[in-house]
Amino acid sequence: MTTIPQPAPLGVAAIGYAFMGKAHSNAWRNVASFFDVPAFEQKVLVGRDAGAVAEAAAKYGWAESATDWRSVIERDDIHIIDICAPGWMHAEIAVAALEAGKHVLVEKPLANTLGEAELMTAAAAKARARGVQSMIGFNYRRVPALALARELIAEDRLGTIRHVRAAYLQDWLTDAESPMSWRLRKETAGSGALGDIASHAIDQILYLLGDDVIEVSGRLQTFVDQRPGAEGPEDVTVDDAAWVNLSLASGAIASVEASRVATGRKNSLQLEVYGSLGSLTFDLENLNELNFMDTTVPVREQGFRRILVNEPEHPYLGAWWPQGHIIGWEHTFTHQVRDFLTAIAAGDAPSPSFEDGLNVQHILAAVEESAAAKSSLIQLNAPVTEGA
Amino acid sequence: MTTIPQPAPLGVAAIGYAFMGKAHSNAWRNVASFFDVPAFEQKVLVGRDAGAVAEAAAKYGWAESATDWRSVIERDDIHIIDICAPGWMHAEIAVAALEAGKHVLVEKPLANTLGEAELMTAAAAKARARGVQSMIGFNYRRVPALALARELIAEDRLGTIRHVRAAYLQDWLTDAESPMSWRLRKETAGSGALGDIASHAIDQILYLLGDDVIEVSGRLQTFVDQRPGAEGPEDVTVDDAAWVNLSLASGAIASVEASRVATGRKNSLQLEVYGSLGSLTFDLENLNELNFMDTTVPVREQGFRRILVNEPEHPYLGAWWPQGHIIGWEHTFTHQVRDFLTAIAAGDAPSPSFEDGLNVQHILAAVEESAAAKSSLIQLNAPVTEGA
Amino acid sequence: MTTIPQPAPLGVAAIGYAFMGKAHSNAWRNVASFFDVPAFEQKVLVGRDAGAVAEAAAKYGWAESATDWRSVIERDDIHIIDICAPGWMHAEIAVAALEAGKHVLVEKPLANTLGEAELMTAAAAKARARGVQSMIGFNYRRVPALALARELIAEDRLGTIRHVRAAYLQDWLTDAESPMSWRLRKETAGSGALGDIASHAIDQILYLLGDDVIEVSGRLQTFVDQRPGAEGPEDVTVDDAAWVNLSLASGAIASVEASRVATGRKNSLQLEVYGSLGSLTFDLENLNELNFMDTTVPVREQGFRRILVNEPEHPYLGAWWPQGHIIGWEHTFTHQVRDFLTAIAAGDAPSPSFEDGLNVQHILAAVEESAAAKSSLIQLNAPVTEGA
Amino acid sequence: MTTIPQPAPLGVAAIGYAFMGKAHSNAWRNVASFFDVPAFEQKVLVGRDAGAVAEAAAKYGWAESATDWRSVIERDDIHIIDICAPGWMHAEIAVAALEAGKHVLVEKPLANTLGEAELMTAAAAKARARGVQSMIGFNYRRVPALALARELIAEDRLGTIRHVRAAYLQDWLTDAESPMSWRLRKETAGSGALGDIASHAIDQILYLLGDDVIEVSGRLQTFVDQRPGAEGPEDVTVDDAAWVNLSLASGAIASVEASRVATGRKNSLQLEVYGSLGSLTFDLENLNELNFMDTTVPVREQGFRRILVNEPEHPYLGAWWPQGHIIGWEHTFTHQVRDFLTAIAAGDAPSPSFEDGLNVQHILAAVEESAAAKSSLIQLNAPVTEGA
Repeated sequence: MTTIPQPAPLGVAAIGYAFMGKAHSNAWRNVASFFDVPAFEQKVLVGRDAGAVAEAAAKYGWAESATDWRSVIERDDIHIIDICAPGWMHAEIAVAALEAGKHVLVEKPLANTLGEAELMTAAAAKARARGVQSMIGFNYRRVPALALARELIAEDRLGTIRHVRAAYLQDWLTDAESPMSWRLRKETAGSGALGDIASHAIDQILYLLGDDVIEVSGRLQTFVDQRPGAEGPEDVTVDDAAWVNLSLASGAIASVEASRVATGRKNSLQLEVYGSLGSLTFDLENLNELNFMDTTVPVREQGFRRILVNEPEHPYLGAWWPQGHIIGWEHTFTHQVRDFLTAIAAGDAPSPSFEDGLNVQHILAAVEESAAAKSSLIQLNAPVTEGA
Repeated sequence: MTTIPQPAPLGVAAIGYAFMGKAHSNAWRNVASFFDVPAFEQKVLVGRDAGAVAEAAAKYGWAESATDWRSVIERDDIHIIDICAPGWMHAEIAVAALEAGKHVLVEKPLANTLGEAELMTAAAAKARARGVQSMIGFNYRRVPALALARELIAEDRLGTIRHVRAAYLQDWLTDAESPMSWRLRKETAGSGALGDIASHAIDQILYLLGDDVIEVSGRLQTFVDQRPGAEGPEDVTVDDAAWVNLSLASGAIASVEASRVATGRKNSLQLEVYGSLGSLTFDLENLNELNFMDTTVPVREQGFRRILVNEPEHPYLGAWWPQGHIIGWEHTFTHQVRDFLTAIAAGDAPSPSFEDGLNVQHILAAVEESAAAKSSLIQLNAPVTEGA
Repeated sequence: MTTIPQPAPLGVAAIGYAFMGKAHSNAWRNVASFFDVPAFEQKVLVGRDAGAVAEAAAKYGWAESATDWRSVIERDDIHIIDICAPGWMHAEIAVAALEAGKHVLVEKPLANTLGEAELMTAAAAKARARGVQSMIGFNYRRVPALALARELIAEDRLGTIRHVRAAYLQDWLTDAESPMSWRLRKETAGSGALGDIASHAIDQILYLLGDDVIEVSGRLQTFVDQRPGAEGPEDVTVDDAAWVNLSLASGAIASVEASRVATGRKNSLQLEVYGSLGSLTFDLENLNELNFMDTTVPVREQGFRRILVNEPEHPYLGAWWPQGHIIGWEHTFTHQVRDFLTAIAAGDAPSPSFEDGLNVQHILAAVEESAAAKSSLIQLNAPVTEGA
Repeated sequence: MTTIPQPAPLGVAAIGYAFMGKAHSNAWRNVASFFDVPAFEQKVLVGRDAGAVAEAAAKYGWAESATDWRSVIERDDIHIIDICAPGWMHAEIAVAALEAGKHVLVEKPLANTLGEAELMTAAAAKARARGVQSMIGFNYRRVPALALARELIAEDRLGTIRHVRAAYLQDWLTDAESPMSWRLRKETAGSGALGDIASHAIDQILYLLGDDVIEVSGRLQTFVDQRPGAEGPEDVTVDDAAWVNLSLASGAIASVEASRVATGRKNSLQLEVYGSLGSLTFDLENLNELNFMDTTVPVREQGFRRILVNEPEHPYLGAWWPQGHIIGWEHTFTHQVRDFLTAIAAGDAPSPSFEDGLNVQHILAAVEESAAAKSSLIQLNAPVTEGA
């Protein structure tokens, strides 16, 4: 990578101010209070409704608001575009921004279709060659406990990984009377639990193990197939739950279960990694904790250790509060922005890349293919890499 | 069912004195100290090694020992045969005992092959018509917390069940250097984690939901394919781990994962049942606890309740100790014997029946079939019922 | 209370930029992004070292920095003084600020001596009569789970409270070789675990129960009585741990244990409240959870409910993220500032008041008196109230 | 100790067949099925009601029953007397049995009064000199997890113990309408939560640390001071809850809290031991688990390990079931009888001795003395030792 001198300060524009826009704005507003990052300014928040976006901009710490993302992309004082708009808008914005020489951070999923994702990845590769960076927002890579998990695995503390047991369980669709929405239509949402949350679990597996998926089988299910719409019952055309089985290049096997009807589970991304020397477990509802089983200590004293990942020795934690003063879900976005800014300043390609996002989408597509073919195992091509 | 007057006391013979023989003997030795059961006597323990079985008989509370199970079956003072011998011996002993008019309790799995299991089921049906009872030892149906779970589900406290997440995780094969044994050869063991432990999880799903399986897919994996034998490395020919997906007649879906290389999990049968009104979770390593989420209380105070299933109000617990004085794994066998004896006295067919055992084996066979066919979904015939 | 029209925007100055200054600044920087609060501006951060405070001001979102708190207090554009300076400075600053007509938020403890605390409380009472508000920063009153606990108790869901079991356990002094510091000298710190952390636990008991302490006994212990100083070993003159027993006016009894040598406990404020109808437990290391035992449901299904206090229905949570997206320790300060600002705008006296802080200090003083008198029970006078 | 040849088999008589008689009988009935113990016979069960004791004897595995304990003590074929009768009968039976040359196991508490306890201890010392053994039934010393805890402490894995946090919490008296009973009258029960359950916690502290108590303070409280009797309300004259603070000879401090109105706690003996190098926590409601914090591993991976104390490597566990097949509360009595029999065969004095029981009663008496004297610290004399 060539280090490219960056303007100081970097001007940032974010597009979208709903749930993700709020979370990303929070990260931009706070990152410099905790981390040493390159100078930047929260310049513009972009949205379609002029009044609403102006209010959001004021509330979330942006200097200005705007309604036309194209003109924002053209501005010389904007160097970073943070895309928090819905998935179907990602490709157009990201490609335009990259071509305009702006660094791009895009929320997951990379896009709603494989074709769009491939266009974006190609644009990212071209831009990268010119020193223009891009990143996809798999923010759970920035949970300190999971970053620690990755370190332990990379240091071979778990030995040969045999299998991974992953689940992402929520329950906001449990009630069969909860209303129809764009998230439940295939045209607008692409898929249901699969793309929304199983994607996070799959990315984590790749991240933690540093491995590739070579074979996939899966199953999708819609338990509540009609929900109340504005003018009567409407068909739900995405999955409520998904079951995935992955073969990894290393020989490990991973199972993934995702559900939005898992009553009592609020935001429970659970990960269990079993190796020949040890194992790890994690639950996003207790994101400050990692459980570690180390079989190299005497049997008499073996057991899962509940590590409260809140020490200065832990990833990202030196910047926050003294030990035991736990952090929350939103902090993962702050870490994400910190790593993105740091990479830009260093001229490094941030991680995860658009290629990483595309690879996850290939896997999701294979799950859909398998689900349509009686759950049969589907072979995957070699993953896309940044060099490709 | 016709109530058949039973001899008093019932004479009991057990065949086998290894792990399961020890556990069953413990149940026979203690059941009458806690429960009101028909009079019975621990008459004979049967095994192949005369000296060892005599010692075991003395230790475990049997009046006599014997080496020839055939002659024991013929004795007039023996009315119950408890089969704790290896799976490949089940069919021959069970059929002979039933034909000799003895009530039979047989450890799971029912048999090592489907053919044998069918023979046994046919013999059980014929015997039942004559008032001779039979039962398969899925002892986890007698965990009080799981019996309570079944009650809550039967009372519709969970509403429509959407999906079940089950796992049976152990780690005694984690070490790749642990030696070869008969349990790791297909000829002697039938299968690995699938038949040994996934079978328990599958039976529990059927028990808890009172449902039938109509479609199956699965995957099997052997992570350590050679292990040290007496004369050098030998091939492991059974699975270390299994992944199963089940469609239930009700529309629910269940996933089952079984592993004997899940480092740090000692005997962890985990069950999670998600319904439209509530959910339940359980782990055999904390078998005195059931967690219950009830969404009919106000949202503000909803949460998984850790029920310590140790009150006189709970199944089986009135017989034991005051509240909070927890019971252990072995107690499930005591409950099993209690229910078996009570059913015999009442002239009722005990549950689970050989048909229940056969149904589980049909499912396991379908998993193997699916695993051999790229994990494709396999249709199952209608389950065998006792009336069949 | 008389509602006093407030200037818009309110100008805020904070004094101190160490641990607490960082936490308070974070709250000021973010509160308006999540809550509807009166308009305010982060005007000035005050500290003794001009360079360091300027840097901190820039980092933490303050428009300016200053080194002389007295001149800041005199400024017409400053309406709120947030005191994050060490305890021995509280009285002088707070009294001056109140007399200058500034609303005051002061970190706990109210002061290092009872005499100073009484001066401050008198000044607060006088100021309050003029519509000038004051508040002490017992931030754990703003943990949503504890606010919910208070609601449940106030609604009589626990019935008659019999006893409370509280502990605040940390371990940063476990290592006998960790060095001497101002926190370990009575002259500078006042006391050790007692004033630093037992004070939080005691305030919580009063908050949760809405009760008063009438009798106190206690014990203090220094386990490591010398620690390495710059020029050799120095005497530790404050307690490492404290044990307190409190009689409450209602007839309830509370025990409090505080330690800074409880190895493995990082920031574990544990609370257990036992009543005739139910009970509650809480641990600050899992601050998003409250466990609730409700004995009004049938015995068969009773158990502690783990309530994930992250629903819009829960205190403060509507402002943050969707369910299950947990918050962290720092958020309690944001809630504190929100409640402080809201009370100022409404002309209400914020809670907890300086009187609340003084009452806690009377209790701490009684603990010290008891500890010096062989742990004998000490009677307390009636608590100071805001009307006094 | 002189090894005294023992008769074979040893004849055992138990006195009492209520809760404790049932638990002890269970231990005698099963111990030889799991452990190698000297030969013995369950000869006689003694009780006052001839019919009831005959029925209990048959149910619990005793060859005979009897109503006159004195004549049983005289029998030549009886060598061991196991006293499960109420506390006020202990002294008379134990002294008579010891004088008759019988080994004695007595349930805790040793006696209802200090005077009786001293008589018994003197008789035990005299008998011991003649090779006649005695033991008090603090069965929780035989919880495998606590035996492991003691080993770890003895091996200095915790370093210098600073403080212990103990509680024994139950809730069977939570309901103010639950009726009066002999357990709630001082004349019959001696004391309430203090003698019944705090005694267990205090014995555990002494056992785990191998330490002596030198100073005591305490407080007792009766929250429900009248309860429904047969003929109207009656006064409760024992404590519902107790708070104890202990100074240990080593310099450590222990707090003990006991309650029978801790709603939701069923049988929760909680122990936390904090040392300079590590710490341990335990809860009897999960008695198969011990949590161990070891600060000698790197900070990054420190955390409480949940050790499932169910491996052959753990105390007592080699005799039971494979790993992860948990045991229950009753097993502690089996271990107790095993250790008692083994000591007798070896001619060793079993532990805990009557002196250990007397020392606990001295501590309980000092708690009552302190409670009556405004909780003031009370000095204790040096503990009684077996050599005394």
